[in-house]
Amino acid sequence: MSANVIGVDMGGTKILSAVIGPEGNILGTAKVPTKADRGPSVVIDRIADSIRKAIDKSGVAPTSIEAVGIGAPGPLDPATGVVIFAPNLRWKDVRLKDELEARVGFPTFVDNDVNVGTLGEHVFGAGQGFQNVVGIFVGTGIGGGIILQGELFHGASKTAGEIGHIIVKAGGPRCGCGTRGCLEAIASRTAMTKQFRKAIKKGQKSVLSELTGGDLTAIRSGVLAKAIRLNDKLTLKVIKKTTKYLGVGIGSIVNFLNPEMIVLGGGVVEALDDTFLDDIRAAAEKYALPNTLSGVQIVPAKLGDNAGILGAAALARQRIFND
Amino acid sequence: MSANVIGVDMGGTKILSAVIGPEGNILGTAKVPTKADRGPSVVIDRIADSIRKAIDKSGVAPTSIEAVGIGAPGPLDPATGVVIFAPNLRWKDVRLKDELEARVGFPTFVDNDVNVGTLGEHVFGAGQGFQNVVGIFVGTGIGGGIILQGELFHGASKTAGEIGHIIVKAGGPRCGCGTRGCLEAIASRTAMTKQFRKAIKKGQKSVLSELTGGDLTAIRSGVLAKAIRLNDKLTLKVIKKTTKYLGVGIGSIVNFLNPEMIVLGGGVVEALDDTFLDDIRAAAEKYALPNTLSGVQIVPAKLGDNAGILGAAALARQRIFND
Repeated sequence: MSANVIGVDMGGTKILSAVIGPEGNILGTAKVPTKADRGPSVVIDRIADSIRKAIDKSGVAPTSIEAVGIGAPGPLDPATGVVIFAPNLRWKDVRLKDELEARVGFPTFVDNDVNVGTLGEHVFGAGQGFQNVVGIFVGTGIGGGIILQGELFHGASKTAGEIGHIIVKAGGPRCGCGTRGCLEAIASRTAMTKQFRKAIKKGQKSVLSELTGGDLTAIRSGVLAKAIRLNDKLTLKVIKKTTKYLGVGIGSIVNFLNPEMIVLGGGVVEALDDTFLDDIRAAAEKYALPNTLSGVQIVPAKLGDNAGILGAAALARQRIFND
Repeated sequence: MSANVIGVDMGGTKILSAVIGPEGNILGTAKVPTKADRGPSVVIDRIADSIRKAIDKSGVAPTSIEAVGIGAPGPLDPATGVVIFAPNLRWKDVRLKDELEARVGFPTFVDNDVNVGTLGEHVFGAGQGFQNVVGIFVGTGIGGGIILQGELFHGASKTAGEIGHIIVKAGGPRCGCGTRGCLEAIASRTAMTKQFRKAIKKGQKSVLSELTGGDLTAIRSGVLAKAIRLNDKLTLKVIKKTTKYLGVGIGSIVNFLNPEMIVLGGGVVEALDDTFLDDIRAAAEKYALPNTLSGVQIVPAKLGDNAGILGAAALARQRIFND
């Protein structure tokens, strides 16, 4: 199977398409704005355009392309390729697979963007050679994916891997999902921002006020990293709480599923340095059963922004041979 | 494959062996005391005896027996059949598989007792026809097992399914495992007993004092059931808390793994009536993501005390054809 595939990372603001060779080599890419406000049909046209551009740039023959894989936001049905609901695109029940196949002529496979990122890390990144891998991505929210026996595990409602909604502290902070105490409600960047705003409003001094020009609503991961380097007391305190609860969540996962590997990625993890990961590991050690964590590797994601296109390519490759 | 297998349920006080036919029909059983105080070698002799007795009683020809399956306590290695540590038997690194094979001559397969119970429910009980099943057994502690794609999932450290040690309330009550806030520390019978003792010590009246003859250390599940029927305020309060936290744990499992089915069993679940299960389901509904629980069945275990022997038989049957 030396053929090439297309990997598409479809986000709310941009679409990144790439031609990927059999070894995960990126042969050509094209990036276009999503323009979600123009409606699904235009967005799918733009995906098709970006695929054609990526093929052009790669110089490979279109006949060498076997399939297209797409990581898309929102709950979706990986079997039918229908995006059920994607608030940031304002999509509802969009037949992404069928519509794109009609435009590009290649068999197309769709999966959730976080699942695809996890698959990318499994096939081409940190999780290579491991059969049972859990991916955890900490950013605005906390997403995740589960690889079992080398393949994405979707679960009964196709929603498996919602690691951000493991309840780590019943009765804790209110979560966007409507309940309380979810991991995402305590340890995502959004949750951290809430803690910063609350403390600063109460009069606590922090270099964050300065670094954000007073606009605490938009604390990016890079700003967090800077505040840590400046030894900002408030930032360190909030980060400590974050690592603790990520450790609680990971401890639960280790006790329950006991995967071979947990890959940690996402904006927050990437922006912060190794001590962040060390602290998470130490916290997980406290919550995992004795002797269980020794068998489970906790490692940083390797692919960064390429996890999406590489994972989508891996998806296309797996599905074309299995479906 | 019309051959018979032996299923052995090995507990701290008794060993139950059975000849099980291809359809899960129990053809003959034998029960003997474990006599763990006499050491592993004697116990394994006793297992061999109970197997011979069960074959005698069944009337089947010993040549019709294909294999032996055993559910044993403690962390163990299902590949080698070595029981690593079983405190209630005072066993450490006991080569159960090899030792029993030497005595009975049948290929023998060993797995953790709770895993075996879950497998029993999957193959012959509530989970028939479902490929991804989580078993949760609430008794003195809270144990569990995970069936993925129709087979037991063991995980990297062979400890997968430790549902009692999902952390549902970080910083909560101290658990026997050394950490805090595990499901088992809040919702097992042991945890309930602690709550009863504390409340009664503080002067709260409860029919439990009478039902246990004042010995609150030994509140059995049957006593709980009676106290509920008598509308005992303290019991109802503690049970309410228990159902809530079982719902939190199940919510986390549904959000994370999204299995097709959760089977609830164990002494506490069996002793209490349907409203207990209904209350757990209602609590899980609160903690699971919207629309995810609709795809996940939460059902009571069906096999009761036979889950062990039937699960062990299923284990023997699966392993002899796969290993």
